[in-house]
Amino acid sequence: MGRQKVYLEKLSHFFQIRNLLIRQGLAECLGTLVLVMFGCGAVAQLVLSKGTHGMFLTVNFAFGFAAMLGILVCGQISGGHLNPAVTFSLCLLGREPWRKFPMYFLFQTIGSFFGAAIIFGMYYDALFDFPGAFDMSGENSTAGIFATYPGKHLTILNGFFDQIIGTAALIVCILAIVDPYNNPIPQGLEAFTVGFVVLVIGLSMGFNSGYAVNPARDLGPRLFTAMAGWGSEVFTTRNGWFLVPTFAPFLGSIIGVIIYQLMVGFHVEGEVRDRNMREAENIGLTGVPAENSKNTKQIL
Amino acid sequence: MGRQKVYLEKLSHFFQIRNLLIRQGLAECLGTLVLVMFGCGAVAQLVLSKGTHGMFLTVNFAFGFAAMLGILVCGQISGGHLNPAVTFSLCLLGREPWRKFPMYFLFQTIGSFFGAAIIFGMYYDALFDFPGAFDMSGENSTAGIFATYPGKHLTILNGFFDQIIGTAALIVCILAIVDPYNNPIPQGLEAFTVGFVVLVIGLSMGFNSGYAVNPARDLGPRLFTAMAGWGSEVFTTRNGWFLVPTFAPFLGSIIGVIIYQLMVGFHVEGEVRDRNMREAENIGLTGVPAENSKNTKQIL
Amino acid sequence: MGRQKVYLEKLSHFFQIRNLLIRQGLAECLGTLVLVMFGCGAVAQLVLSKGTHGMFLTVNFAFGFAAMLGILVCGQISGGHLNPAVTFSLCLLGREPWRKFPMYFLFQTIGSFFGAAIIFGMYYDALFDFPGAFDMSGENSTAGIFATYPGKHLTILNGFFDQIIGTAALIVCILAIVDPYNNPIPQGLEAFTVGFVVLVIGLSMGFNSGYAVNPARDLGPRLFTAMAGWGSEVFTTRNGWFLVPTFAPFLGSIIGVIIYQLMVGFHVEGEVRDRNMREAENIGLTGVPAENSKNTKQIL
Amino acid sequence: MGRQKVYLEKLSHFFQIRNLLIRQGLAECLGTLVLVMFGCGAVAQLVLSKGTHGMFLTVNFAFGFAAMLGILVCGQISGGHLNPAVTFSLCLLGREPWRKFPMYFLFQTIGSFFGAAIIFGMYYDALFDFPGAFDMSGENSTAGIFATYPGKHLTILNGFFDQIIGTAALIVCILAIVDPYNNPIPQGLEAFTVGFVVLVIGLSMGFNSGYAVNPARDLGPRLFTAMAGWGSEVFTTRNGWFLVPTFAPFLGSIIGVIIYQLMVGFHVEGEVRDRNMREAENIGLTGVPAENSKNTKQIL
Repeated sequence: MGRQKVYLEKLSHFFQIRNLLIRQGLAECLGTLVLVMFGCGAVAQLVLSKGTHGMFLTVNFAFGFAAMLGILVCGQISGGHLNPAVTFSLCLLGREPWRKFPMYFLFQTIGSFFGAAIIFGMYYDALFDFPGAFDMSGENSTAGIFATYPGKHLTILNGFFDQIIGTAALIVCILAIVDPYNNPIPQGLEAFTVGFVVLVIGLSMGFNSGYAVNPARDLGPRLFTAMAGWGSEVFTTRNGWFLVPTFAPFLGSIIGVIIYQLMVGFHVEGEVRDRNMREAENIGLTGVPAENSKNTKQIL
Repeated sequence: MGRQKVYLEKLSHFFQIRNLLIRQGLAECLGTLVLVMFGCGAVAQLVLSKGTHGMFLTVNFAFGFAAMLGILVCGQISGGHLNPAVTFSLCLLGREPWRKFPMYFLFQTIGSFFGAAIIFGMYYDALFDFPGAFDMSGENSTAGIFATYPGKHLTILNGFFDQIIGTAALIVCILAIVDPYNNPIPQGLEAFTVGFVVLVIGLSMGFNSGYAVNPARDLGPRLFTAMAGWGSEVFTTRNGWFLVPTFAPFLGSIIGVIIYQLMVGFHVEGEVRDRNMREAENIGLTGVPAENSKNTKQIL
Repeated sequence: MGRQKVYLEKLSHFFQIRNLLIRQGLAECLGTLVLVMFGCGAVAQLVLSKGTHGMFLTVNFAFGFAAMLGILVCGQISGGHLNPAVTFSLCLLGREPWRKFPMYFLFQTIGSFFGAAIIFGMYYDALFDFPGAFDMSGENSTAGIFATYPGKHLTILNGFFDQIIGTAALIVCILAIVDPYNNPIPQGLEAFTVGFVVLVIGLSMGFNSGYAVNPARDLGPRLFTAMAGWGSEVFTTRNGWFLVPTFAPFLGSIIGVIIYQLMVGFHVEGEVRDRNMREAENIGLTGVPAENSKNTKQIL
Repeated sequence: MGRQKVYLEKLSHFFQIRNLLIRQGLAECLGTLVLVMFGCGAVAQLVLSKGTHGMFLTVNFAFGFAAMLGILVCGQISGGHLNPAVTFSLCLLGREPWRKFPMYFLFQTIGSFFGAAIIFGMYYDALFDFPGAFDMSGENSTAGIFATYPGKHLTILNGFFDQIIGTAALIVCILAIVDPYNNPIPQGLEAFTVGFVVLVIGLSMGFNSGYAVNPARDLGPRLFTAMAGWGSEVFTTRNGWFLVPTFAPFLGSIIGVIIYQLMVGFHVEGEVRDRNMREAENIGLTGVPAENSKNTKQIL
């Protein structure tokens, strides 16, 4: 076993990446891969088994717990965003530098692309055995396993609104969970809680178009399906529906940030600031570092 | 990024509200909005998809986890009641001042009104596409998405009893969770546990009339439906059923408080008091603050 | 509010019970009431709604979370057994005095009697509206809402074996959770974990006869049904089936205790004892209290 | 009670096993027994009740929570692997000595053999009452209650790939959970989290062949069915399918270890090493034990 340790040590030295941003990107990539692999896997299981091995509830559970596990895999290194809309919100609030945004978006999309590819490989036989193997529409359509498509009843306008509301709800809940001034849960349980947020969004906001609320989760698998046999129709269908889950979530992020900050965030933040100022005055401005208040907690 | 921080700081100063009661009301408003948005959203998904995207279990999960998330959003600021019956119980026990009660009731009702409005907007197309769009009764009725209505088998008397039992069960469990003398769970997990209480009430007490057990959760969406197109019938149907979920929960609160205090609360409280008195005697009444016993924990 | 505090204080003094065993009995009574109210409530919802508001899975969830909440309500005071078979196991292991056993059994049965009564009252209209209102057998039988009855395929012998295995599995898991020498989970989460044990027993051992695995949970509601209109047939049906869930669980307890102790318990206990002895020798028998090892944790 | 304590003490001395590896083996045996008993019990309940008392989702829940409980039962003693593929991964990474691997594999297989035997005994009547009592194939086949068999659509090649992906996903998530340098969750919650991993694998990767991803979980019950009446066909069916869940998981382990280490593990490990080196230099190589960094946590 001594020799094994030496080899492992050597491997560790050889493969270690010291650039923090690349390391974070790789972690986000693996986290998003986990999210999409388990999430889209559950949709595949539901569709390809024609309901014998799944139902809409199992898809909701899968996406919720997949988000939880994805965050656990990469949370310590990259923060566990798994979603460009989350990165965008944290940049808006000045909690992450803006230069992280394009990097994270890219790696998240790459991760979700490969997550979809793994599910495609895993259910390759089942897919070819399925009546509507590469159909874009109809009741045996399989494109919806990977990317999201709107229900028949949905107009583009309502679909846009749907994605905005879903993302805003996600962001409000995530901000409450990671707000350093409003710390409601024991450290280390953020991933579980975010998983429940994703679960409940699926339970209540999944009927219109499948609750993407995540540009990377939708774009990566859509790119994959375009290449794997469903063709360019995945982009052109329903007058370019794919633009909705790609762009609406960012608008939803902005609205979520505004609602949370106006109704909760600014006030708790201000309260801590006021207390720190009073304390500083009491001590007589003796250089006490005001930002080290006990009420702040490091973000996830 | 320096300039961004300056702007955020300015915004924070501009929008900060220093009145504690208003801040708490706003937080309750957002928490109840989250509760109703996710909860009624799940009912909407079940009804409008005709069962393909939901079942009664998903509604139960959604209300349970929605309560959890609502409490997480506002719990640090306002205590996370989300329910006038909970506020009423804590006032009865002297743990909250009575002046909070009307304020919380108002803001909780406003929050649930807007929660319903968001779901109405989100499923606007699906609702108009639905056969019974604005029907009050019949198998395609949609009014039940927002407020609760009694099952066909239910008399007003049994309905009243149903809401009393449901609320009393809720209050007994919540009091056990937040009792400062009977602290069973790690701090920070109260929200999760209350979520499970709401879930299990839905699993076992949801058949009669949809387990409102919360005047604000029922009244806000009912007002919204009256304005949004279902008309005044939402109040007059079944001989003024809406009075039951509006008033019975308060009676249930009183019963729940009595049962919990008689069977558990008074005894644990008394035990701590007895021990404090013995300790005080031993030390010789040297001014030890008896209420600082280690056995007490701050309420949620 | 000052006057309210004075009244509450007076009430608290007036109703405080100082006898520990009675206080523990009352707490067990309320805990078991919560267990049976939510658990049997879910069965009632499933049966009376003819499956529209429940399925077997919801019953499993309800009993699991009901056990969790019952333990949370009374765990600090009485240990949260809710089940005479659990009390019996802990007495066998010398962790509870034997005189507690009859007291707990009595109060647990009283609690489950009233839990059933509450559900009967809650679903009174629904029950009378149901085709087979007070039927003992047939597809519209309602007796199974309260007590357990064997499936058609089950012989008494296999039913006995079924209850023994179920209880042994329950006891093995509970012993692992509360073993002071094998403490796997953070303090305060025992109730949640026991809830999951009850849930999983329902998922995998519920088909034969409805997984009573608890003499009090079965006997109390059965007594209630005998009085409420189903008649003495609840005791005589299937050659006195009721004796199986009343007595087999105790046998299961013994087997569960033996299996856990032989395969895990004795060894971890011995290891701690060995270490304490070594430490005592090292220190030179200077009166270090060997049983205060850091590896022991107070049981739930 | 004094005499009882003396007897218990004597029993404890008599049965105590001091050999650590045997104690660990026994613990693994009981843990895997719990896993298979609850997991296969849920499949039995689903199959034998013809869907009235279960569905595929309940099987997923049962295996998830069964894994959780199995780990809780034995985790403190043996690490709670329950799966030779997990033991193999930890050996690969040098976190467990290789001599544990055959021992654990053996005891895990014995445990899962007896877990299957218990379920066979429990559902003995139900099995003989079932139309296809000992059928290997057809819609009333019962062999799938115990071991896993491929779906009709699955080729051996895709089945091999399926088991590799499933195990790799399991290993990536488990490594993230127990990585001493990437510790995302509070100590004591590892078992819960691994339970969710098993649950989500079932939700998304269960359609092809029933997600064994565990050689012991599959081999033990398969041996049992060969002896209990299904005959040697359990090994010969589908061109020796049983070899796939027996060997593919080890390949999956290797791939999972490589992916996790390349994308996350090596970098966090290296970062801690770098920091330790810098600290050692700063202090001037005064013998500070570099491996005692605060960033490391003992593995489960």
